[in-house]
Amino acid sequence: MEFTAQIIAGFLGGTVEGDPNTKVHTIAKIEEGFTGALSFLANPKYTPYIYSTQSSIVLVNTDFVAEQPVAATLVRVNNAYEAFASLLDLYAQSKPLPTGIEEPSFIHSSAKLGANVYVGAFSYIAENAVIGENVKIYPQVYIGNKVKIGDNTTLYPGTIVYEECVIGNNCIIHAGAIIGADGFGFASQEDTNYKKIPQIGNVIIEDYVEIGANATVDRATMGSTILRKGVKIDDHVHIAHNVEIGENTVMAAQGGVAGSTKVGKNCMFGGQVGISPHIKIADGVKVGAQAGISGDVRKPGAILLGSPAYEIGRQRRSMIVYKNLPDLVAKVTELEKTIEELKNRLAKG
Amino acid sequence: MEFTAQIIAGFLGGTVEGDPNTKVHTIAKIEEGFTGALSFLANPKYTPYIYSTQSSIVLVNTDFVAEQPVAATLVRVNNAYEAFASLLDLYAQSKPLPTGIEEPSFIHSSAKLGANVYVGAFSYIAENAVIGENVKIYPQVYIGNKVKIGDNTTLYPGTIVYEECVIGNNCIIHAGAIIGADGFGFASQEDTNYKKIPQIGNVIIEDYVEIGANATVDRATMGSTILRKGVKIDDHVHIAHNVEIGENTVMAAQGGVAGSTKVGKNCMFGGQVGISPHIKIADGVKVGAQAGISGDVRKPGAILLGSPAYEIGRQRRSMIVYKNLPDLVAKVTELEKTIEELKNRLAKG
Amino acid sequence: MEFTAQIIAGFLGGTVEGDPNTKVHTIAKIEEGFTGALSFLANPKYTPYIYSTQSSIVLVNTDFVAEQPVAATLVRVNNAYEAFASLLDLYAQSKPLPTGIEEPSFIHSSAKLGANVYVGAFSYIAENAVIGENVKIYPQVYIGNKVKIGDNTTLYPGTIVYEECVIGNNCIIHAGAIIGADGFGFASQEDTNYKKIPQIGNVIIEDYVEIGANATVDRATMGSTILRKGVKIDDHVHIAHNVEIGENTVMAAQGGVAGSTKVGKNCMFGGQVGISPHIKIADGVKVGAQAGISGDVRKPGAILLGSPAYEIGRQRRSMIVYKNLPDLVAKVTELEKTIEELKNRLAKG
Repeated sequence: MEFTAQIIAGFLGGTVEGDPNTKVHTIAKIEEGFTGALSFLANPKYTPYIYSTQSSIVLVNTDFVAEQPVAATLVRVNNAYEAFASLLDLYAQSKPLPTGIEEPSFIHSSAKLGANVYVGAFSYIAENAVIGENVKIYPQVYIGNKVKIGDNTTLYPGTIVYEECVIGNNCIIHAGAIIGADGFGFASQEDTNYKKIPQIGNVIIEDYVEIGANATVDRATMGSTILRKGVKIDDHVHIAHNVEIGENTVMAAQGGVAGSTKVGKNCMFGGQVGISPHIKIADGVKVGAQAGISGDVRKPGAILLGSPAYEIGRQRRSMIVYKNLPDLVAKVTELEKTIEELKNRLAKG
Repeated sequence: MEFTAQIIAGFLGGTVEGDPNTKVHTIAKIEEGFTGALSFLANPKYTPYIYSTQSSIVLVNTDFVAEQPVAATLVRVNNAYEAFASLLDLYAQSKPLPTGIEEPSFIHSSAKLGANVYVGAFSYIAENAVIGENVKIYPQVYIGNKVKIGDNTTLYPGTIVYEECVIGNNCIIHAGAIIGADGFGFASQEDTNYKKIPQIGNVIIEDYVEIGANATVDRATMGSTILRKGVKIDDHVHIAHNVEIGENTVMAAQGGVAGSTKVGKNCMFGGQVGISPHIKIADGVKVGAQAGISGDVRKPGAILLGSPAYEIGRQRRSMIVYKNLPDLVAKVTELEKTIEELKNRLAKG
Repeated sequence: MEFTAQIIAGFLGGTVEGDPNTKVHTIAKIEEGFTGALSFLANPKYTPYIYSTQSSIVLVNTDFVAEQPVAATLVRVNNAYEAFASLLDLYAQSKPLPTGIEEPSFIHSSAKLGANVYVGAFSYIAENAVIGENVKIYPQVYIGNKVKIGDNTTLYPGTIVYEECVIGNNCIIHAGAIIGADGFGFASQEDTNYKKIPQIGNVIIEDYVEIGANATVDRATMGSTILRKGVKIDDHVHIAHNVEIGENTVMAAQGGVAGSTKVGKNCMFGGQVGISPHIKIADGVKVGAQAGISGDVRKPGAILLGSPAYEIGRQRRSMIVYKNLPDLVAKVTELEKTIEELKNRLAKG
């Protein structure tokens, strides 16, 4: 399939600058462009590439000002990144999706499947599970007893959903993610052996949530571990029992939230962040990679860094001093010498 | 099913305070209580909730002293948390467990299965595997050649056990855990390519061990990687080749132990802890989240924090100074000025 | 099977010291040796064991000088560790490998399988997948549409390879590894909901790559996430979208590389290392465990430590001062007092 700059601009509500009949048949990064490809420019860091790219069409923001001649045909749009993303959507949606029930699969007779469901081979759907419409269950997925899955949700291969967990509409669960394994709860006993605390709660995942490959969301001891609408967690992220993550909060790879912590909405967490148990984090908080949050974060919109994590400005000032600590020691040693000299001079004087 | 306070107190060996005929049919957290629910109070942090909870019965410690009127019927027991856990056990055990061999599954003719085993569909049991009594093998589990699994052990869906590994009695292996993958061992070669060192050992997991979802325990190069009786490791924990973890040691999510390290018994590790290879950690050591242990820990019962980890008191003192490093720099700068002035005064004087 | 010291020396190109007819039938660590076992000594830390080992034969480096009598027969070779590894190879290769297509498995009629392929039960090979010769696909593996896998590659149970990814020759992918899940890409929208950026690229894994259990390598947004020839990544490692890892670079367990970062060749990363997105790391860089790399590393062969990571010498100097920060504060407080006294004396004087 080929599209002209004219058609693309029409679809995106943008304007063409250059030949409206320029054609593209695929997409490419601006720095790896070639004839017939469409690229975009959003991050100013990549601006130099627009003067050298071989791509035939480039989406740019309406306020882009070329400082040199540009060979590509430009399509100006309000937000080049979003516009490009919507073209990616179109491209992605043009791929055929699997449908039907493949054999062998295991679907308990009491399970209810919505219209237009895909169930891949070797998937297992247990008693009284309820699967919504248009759900795509790839091969080798496990859906436990009484699990409920909303409409239009996709479960990639090897996803495991333990019994009684609830997943909303329009969610994406990537391969190897484990939803609803037991929380890590043990009671000390006098003989130092631990007694397992049964984990009889569940996990509730609301609509539009995306869960990365090999991530884990543990079931609550009682009640529910909850991921609110629009939450996105990356690969290897761990959400412990009884945690609640607020709407549209995103957490990058390998982060972990310990038990019973409540995280606000619209927060952003870098990779490998660790969050202590039984704390509360306000809305809109942003946290740098590898940070460790050990106590409540009460200020909405706070930006934190470090382990233990503080407000970013303070942390950065300490980080700079830390890097130069040997200099500080040298300075103090120098001061000691000077003072010793002063003392001697005073004694003599 | 409903139980009265009288019956619960009888079962737990406790005493009733209030109406012994108060009935409950389910359990709830004290802060989320409702009529007909049973709750418990153990952590003093939650004491305020006992005066407002809607739960019908609350388990409390014998030494609990109410400072305001309590609406709920109380059942006093020696250890409210443990007592509650044993009720959770009862509740959990009331759920029917799967039994029998589901089809399609793959069970090699040379494999031996104990009485009352469950093998879920799409599970694979290879040559000469030996499975004990009452073992629950959920769907999509892989049991390699010559693997031995003791009695009453549960393997949740998608668990993988490589050949020749040994798992004890009464263990719980959560979904996606990988037991016995190759240790990470390569020999440098002159041309900078690495030569794989075959990993011909195995993993031995003793009785009463629980392994979290998506955790990994690598097989030994030679000999065995060993998890002693009662060890509990959380989701995403990584145990490298030839490691030995002592009895009843617990490690929270995303921790990692590098190759050949020996960890003592009754240790506790917070989340995301990293432990260097080829070291020894004494018994009863406690380590805070995100710590990095880079050398032997010889003192039993040591409490460590930070990366690199030190004794907690010392680490906390350094952490406090670190947080205020810019103040220290300001103070030193101030001292420099003062000394300069003193020198000038002395020179003038 | 038994081998004599003579035969082993012949195979390894070494020389025998002791009885050339000494026989062994298995291998053991030098500190756990027993009659009939072969061990090796490479790490000087283990030298004391050579005087007490019960092993019948020990491989040693040609330059090994015994300082006490050694009971075992020695075989001297240029590199005892490599020589031992090649014996391990022999031992490992003596195990029979699975072959053939087990049932039930799902192989799409359009998929192409090379000669001598093993496909375990419950594995799924989708449309137009192309599998090379001698490939071992263990049970419960998922191979997506149009995936290409080279010759002699092994995929352990539960491995998932998303559509269109490419895996080279002689690779080993351990259980639970996920190749080609979506990169973590979302565009902010005005209403704070995120819009998913479709990830339409793929993953390319070149020859001789080994990928640890439960590791994840995400597909590129566009183009390819690339692991070059000879890369080794350990369990739980996360490689984000559009990352490129250079030849023969090794990364220990639980490390993570964020999106679009380019890592050089022959680098070594300790466990739990985190690497920021959109940066470049030179060739031959070595990084200590738990380090966090937040910017470009331009110096080839640099050795880095800490989070944020610096050159190791500087970092260690700061670490030492950090550990003694309370002493530094005490010293500064002492100086303040002394200066105050001097001022008073000057004022009086």
